Amino acid sequence: MSRFTSFRTVDIRFPTSRTLDGSDAMNPEPDYSAAYLVLGTDAADGLEGHGFVFTIGRGNDVQQAAVAALEPWVLGRDVDDVLDDLGAIGRELTSDSQLRWLGPEKGIIHMAIGAVLNALWDLKAKRAGKPLWKLLADMSPEEIVHILDLRYLSDVLTADEALDLLRTKADGKAEREAALLADGYPAYATSPGWLGYDDDKLTRLATQALADGFTTIKLKVGGNLADDVRRLGLARECVGPDVDIAIDANQRWDVPEAIAWMDKLAAYRPLWIEEPTNPDDILGHAAIRAAVSPVLVASGEHVHNRIIFKQMLQAGALDVVQIDATRVGGVNENLTILLLAAKFGVPVCPHAGGVGLCEMVRHLAMFDFVAVSGSLEGRMIEYVDHLHEHFLDPVRLHNGRYRAPDTPGFSAQMLASSLADHEYPHGRVWATS
Amino acid sequence: MSRFTSFRTVDIRFPTSRTLDGSDAMNPEPDYSAAYLVLGTDAADGLEGHGFVFTIGRGNDVQQAAVAALEPWVLGRDVDDVLDDLGAIGRELTSDSQLRWLGPEKGIIHMAIGAVLNALWDLKAKRAGKPLWKLLADMSPEEIVHILDLRYLSDVLTADEALDLLRTKADGKAEREAALLADGYPAYATSPGWLGYDDDKLTRLATQALADGFTTIKLKVGGNLADDVRRLGLARECVGPDVDIAIDANQRWDVPEAIAWMDKLAAYRPLWIEEPTNPDDILGHAAIRAAVSPVLVASGEHVHNRIIFKQMLQAGALDVVQIDATRVGGVNENLTILLLAAKFGVPVCPHAGGVGLCEMVRHLAMFDFVAVSGSLEGRMIEYVDHLHEHFLDPVRLHNGRYRAPDTPGFSAQMLASSLADHEYPHGRVWATS
Repeated sequence: MSRFTSFRTVDIRFPTSRTLDGSDAMNPEPDYSAAYLVLGTDAADGLEGHGFVFTIGRGNDVQQAAVAALEPWVLGRDVDDVLDDLGAIGRELTSDSQLRWLGPEKGIIHMAIGAVLNALWDLKAKRAGKPLWKLLADMSPEEIVHILDLRYLSDVLTADEALDLLRTKADGKAEREAALLADGYPAYATSPGWLGYDDDKLTRLATQALADGFTTIKLKVGGNLADDVRRLGLARECVGPDVDIAIDANQRWDVPEAIAWMDKLAAYRPLWIEEPTNPDDILGHAAIRAAVSPVLVASGEHVHNRIIFKQMLQAGALDVVQIDATRVGGVNENLTILLLAAKFGVPVCPHAGGVGLCEMVRHLAMFDFVAVSGSLEGRMIEYVDHLHEHFLDPVRLHNGRYRAPDTPGFSAQMLASSLADHEYPHGRVWATS
Repeated sequence: MSRFTSFRTVDIRFPTSRTLDGSDAMNPEPDYSAAYLVLGTDAADGLEGHGFVFTIGRGNDVQQAAVAALEPWVLGRDVDDVLDDLGAIGRELTSDSQLRWLGPEKGIIHMAIGAVLNALWDLKAKRAGKPLWKLLADMSPEEIVHILDLRYLSDVLTADEALDLLRTKADGKAEREAALLADGYPAYATSPGWLGYDDDKLTRLATQALADGFTTIKLKVGGNLADDVRRLGLARECVGPDVDIAIDANQRWDVPEAIAWMDKLAAYRPLWIEEPTNPDDILGHAAIRAAVSPVLVASGEHVHNRIIFKQMLQAGALDVVQIDATRVGGVNENLTILLLAAKFGVPVCPHAGGVGLCEMVRHLAMFDFVAVSGSLEGRMIEYVDHLHEHFLDPVRLHNGRYRAPDTPGFSAQMLASSLADHEYPHGRVWATS
């Protein structure tokens, strides 16, 4: 029998604001950060579970404190007991009434729970010797449904319906897995479009994205209308008529403003408008979607739980569901959101970038393809080419597509040297700045 | 010129779980707590600003860390500059892009911002020599509108509409203020109905509430249907046909479950069902409201910001808006929510209880009556008779109505001895337990 014997948190920050990587209309100078967790056990295998919450700088210490506050739920417990039933510990953490008051199921406390659950999934997959997507794909529909958190969803998705959805996709799983391993999963490139980049850098990086095999790029918008018109025009000219250009306003607009602004950008035929307004505004997204069609509406990186996603889908507010690996209650809640999207037939195109989000979320998209949606139609994972060098199992792309990872785990683990260098405020990167 | 010279946070917890005060279907054993803030200045008046976030125990330290993280926004700043424009610092705090990532505008970080803003309002009112409700009532419509955070609301409420709403209520303000001072503000009593109380205690406290002049009491439901039927029957028998009984499920149900459960309780003619399901579930509340009429639907103590309230009102999901003094972004956002409710003609009946919530929220309800809604129709403030003895300016009730407070400030200040005794974990109450 082995037990959890350590629960170590680290405040990790990258000084990305120095180069304006990641700059958008709402987030002009982010310092990409992670409230990082390492779970250790006394098992002979020496394996650790790694997980984190992605933040953009200030407050990462508070996020770290929230993760640290969850130590009593893990430390000292039997490792097999916990890992054999990750649905149970997920429900235990999200149901603790005193912690729940701090959300409920939203914000700092909920993301902290997500980090713990993700670290547990990382450890479970490492012990199974499988990458997470494969561990999940090999589970039975009954095992998956047991993990889901279906609370507050029974008006649209019951356990029986979730089972049915998974069972209908049991046929063809092997073929889809083979196709995934052979061809990878489609990606789109966001790196060209940060708002802090000048026009030359935009066109240079857009050209490069095409050369790298991407067929969709994304631009940030919402700072200034004249700039958006110019940048979108430049990008369209640069990539030609057949490459999709998604645009992302990062919650910059009120509802009427979003509709008016999109009217001016429609001529450049954007594929989708992402986060046109506040992520809580379900009815607002629905109104915008009705007004901007045929441009699609995408959102989700800031949607804080399955209950908001449920309503976004009920209200017909979204064409594209953008899950995020560290915003919600971990793998457990993201699996639930995948099932919700499948119920409504809406494609999932994960949000990524930041610190390690590409590494983690690819597992969820790949599981979705193999076992839930069964389709790549209208689906792609965001790709941003920053900070991958700090991860033990970084993303690998080929011809604009993500390769399926084969290293056991959830790919959340950073290099020990990267952790040491970026620990805030005493790591080498900060101490010498 | 004076500056903010201290920003002290304290982790305050009351061991309320020992007596099951405050027990409900979701929160069986709360330890009522406050992540408490004291702002000091170098002004000769020696006045302090007090504010806090109410929590129910575990995680209060994380909430305190979040409040403490906001110190750089206050410490060292010119006191007059800040207090003369509390709208500006409100927008500054909620717009900081790095902090915003941790919400946005929800959960621990948003409540922390609320505590800072409430402490600033407390100090502003103390310096003006007025209770907060009176300070607000004496402000012009233009001054109030400047404070509001109307971002993401322009599809239902513009600054011009808010101005018009306030201007139409300028007539009669003096009469309403006089009526408030003479007669107080209606209240209802929750103390009889905690789920952990046995039947004898329930009927004894219900009888006492009537003797104290209350005409509405509230019972907790949602634990067990047979118990709810028995307790509601007992309460109805005890108070007779003419006293209103509100019931509160504290988010215990899914949507279909809420509707089915309410069908069994309808015979006892509850006034409203409060928090029938998850507070994020706008469309769920709307579906429940349509099904349980003429029983009203009430919610809001866990509604995390104005954007969710906006949609609750757009969707026709609520009959009663229950603001909370410490859940959202302070007085600034609560004023915004009062205006939203006025726009839709829905009465505000504040949530109270906990630690100091009665003390604080009465100011907002009284301002609403004098200057926003102009009405007491269908309006009352929750009253719970716990922990008032720890406050410098505790609530005073007469014949089931709140008296208007006359002490300058926002009534958030606890006695120094109470702060010392309940500091967690080293205060007297905890050290000897």
